[in-house]
Amino acid sequence: MSVQHNVAGLEGVLSSEHAGVLSLLSEGLARVEERLQERMRSELPPVRALCEHVERYRGKMLRPVMTLASGLAVRGEGFGASDIDDAHVTVGAVVEMIHLATLVHDDVLDEAETRRRGETVNKLRGNEIAVILGDYLISTAFHLCSTLDSQRTALHIGAVTTRLCEGELLQLHHRDDLSLDEPTYYEIVERKTAELIGAACELGAMYAGADEAACAGMRAYGVKLGVAFQIQDDLLDLTGDERVVGKPVGKDIEKGKLTLPIIHHLAHAPAIERGRTLTLIEGWNEAVGRGPAAAAAAHDALLAALEGTGSVAYAREEARRLVGEATARLEGATPESAAKSFLRAVAEAVVSRAY
Amino acid sequence: MSVQHNVAGLEGVLSSEHAGVLSLLSEGLARVEERLQERMRSELPPVRALCEHVERYRGKMLRPVMTLASGLAVRGEGFGASDIDDAHVTVGAVVEMIHLATLVHDDVLDEAETRRRGETVNKLRGNEIAVILGDYLISTAFHLCSTLDSQRTALHIGAVTTRLCEGELLQLHHRDDLSLDEPTYYEIVERKTAELIGAACELGAMYAGADEAACAGMRAYGVKLGVAFQIQDDLLDLTGDERVVGKPVGKDIEKGKLTLPIIHHLAHAPAIERGRTLTLIEGWNEAVGRGPAAAAAAHDALLAALEGTGSVAYAREEARRLVGEATARLEGATPESAAKSFLRAVAEAVVSRAY
Repeated sequence: MSVQHNVAGLEGVLSSEHAGVLSLLSEGLARVEERLQERMRSELPPVRALCEHVERYRGKMLRPVMTLASGLAVRGEGFGASDIDDAHVTVGAVVEMIHLATLVHDDVLDEAETRRRGETVNKLRGNEIAVILGDYLISTAFHLCSTLDSQRTALHIGAVTTRLCEGELLQLHHRDDLSLDEPTYYEIVERKTAELIGAACELGAMYAGADEAACAGMRAYGVKLGVAFQIQDDLLDLTGDERVVGKPVGKDIEKGKLTLPIIHHLAHAPAIERGRTLTLIEGWNEAVGRGPAAAAAAHDALLAALEGTGSVAYAREEARRLVGEATARLEGATPESAAKSFLRAVAEAVVSRAY
Repeated sequence: MSVQHNVAGLEGVLSSEHAGVLSLLSEGLARVEERLQERMRSELPPVRALCEHVERYRGKMLRPVMTLASGLAVRGEGFGASDIDDAHVTVGAVVEMIHLATLVHDDVLDEAETRRRGETVNKLRGNEIAVILGDYLISTAFHLCSTLDSQRTALHIGAVTTRLCEGELLQLHHRDDLSLDEPTYYEIVERKTAELIGAACELGAMYAGADEAACAGMRAYGVKLGVAFQIQDDLLDLTGDERVVGKPVGKDIEKGKLTLPIIHHLAHAPAIERGRTLTLIEGWNEAVGRGPAAAAAAHDALLAALEGTGSVAYAREEARRLVGEATARLEGATPESAAKSFLRAVAEAVVSRAY
């Protein structure tokens, strides 16, 4: 198993100085995978089969990578294999399991049929199974979290997961809301995506003995990176290549989710153009229903409109600005080391990835 | 607020000796309600509105009642208001919140439109909102659980909730399985319903300082009572009056859930009769689809078939046997007191309730 494979887009940004970190992370991730499997696998054969299916959803393992690498980074140079301890492995498995649960439930919400080039649980086994399987994963994650030596992490993860659900509910509340504004968009994204990544970093630092300021810095790094990650996800849904992304694109508009480029466009387009875009969005699902040619025409028209107001470029710049802020918070939080350089590279990869 | 109102069917089984317990429980339940509200209510107005809707689902408050009363019972005579401490209130709120989460998700699974004479979240706001709202409640429950002074309870609740989900998954796996047997039925019911009630009792005893044997006894009391409770629920779905039960009846067969009377009937009916019942069950949803008259005819035919093999009576006896076992475990676990007598009455009420 290689970390290059697991952290999307890293191929282009890593260099030989990262070899030592990568080898430690690979070893750590293998332990996280083992813990995930050991915890997720039920004694009941039908449940076990479902969990084995979900294990295939694991892709980038971004959250555990963040936990492990943050732990190494706050220690500075000279870390070794013993610096990834059992608590890091547990936290990595917990954040990944919560992420997997959100994927399973998101697929129900989005009526998604494919994920990571395979069929989704809801497609294969129905929404009912997918709903309860997600619950099983959340519950297993909290159970695992309670094996740690203090309540502090369980409290932290409980708070973050609650806010994650609130973010999802806020997003659903604003479904089809064509007047969604940027502050609300950012509130949704911070809660539903960024704070769990922030917690992954913060807890990695905490279990490596970092002081409060360093933990807060690592958290801020993770949150900023997480928001950038979501903006990039939104961009890929608009501009990505389905064969590279690994799932259908254009789903956000289909599901009534306004993303940053569209919010920017609607706020900045002249009235007539704005009206045209609103008509395009309102007729989106009808166009998709008319077949691939009509869907592609709607897609092209929307992209042209977004280009007209520079809205795709604006979202890219916002993601880049956030990566800059993430890196700045990282600067203050940890001494220079190969692990820190790796975290800088991850932040870069977040906005350069094509999948 | 009165406990009589909250614990279904208690009107007929309580006497003046329970007055002191009831007044303590009422006070304790008011504190549980307060904690539930304080924890469930989000700072985000749309989420807050959803939680206020779910608060209306609270009915019997059976699980918190079990926690509080178990705490009083293990202390024996002479308990007072100070014997319901903050941990009991927290545990009561946690178990009720997990129960509320399962109701919200069960309604999605069952496509239920009404609950406690009001509309369900899925009916009012869609499945998507209901799925994430359930997640929010699970997450909030675990978060609250982590505020207790040790990991022990979080570990316990995590394990029980994981098994609850496994029970639901096992039930879904056996949906439309007309060869479901009694052992599998009991495994499903223990996991999905009974163990949380067992945990409610055990934790109530534990936070009242009971020793391990008493805790185990209270757990067994709760588990047996929980299985009886589910059998009674199944019976009400077959034989209950919709106006009294407060939700549509006959839903289990509609959803392909085989319950104890039917399992018993299929195992004991002569071949020809068995074949007739299988045809009836397989054609159930079609009959329901033809309108109320056809549905009622199918319902009557099924009840007549079940009567023929004594299967409704069998299920009632099983529930009664389990109540007897619950009471026997209670005998060994606690000294005689009004609280113990109350718990005995609750066990009786479980099988005598009509809603």
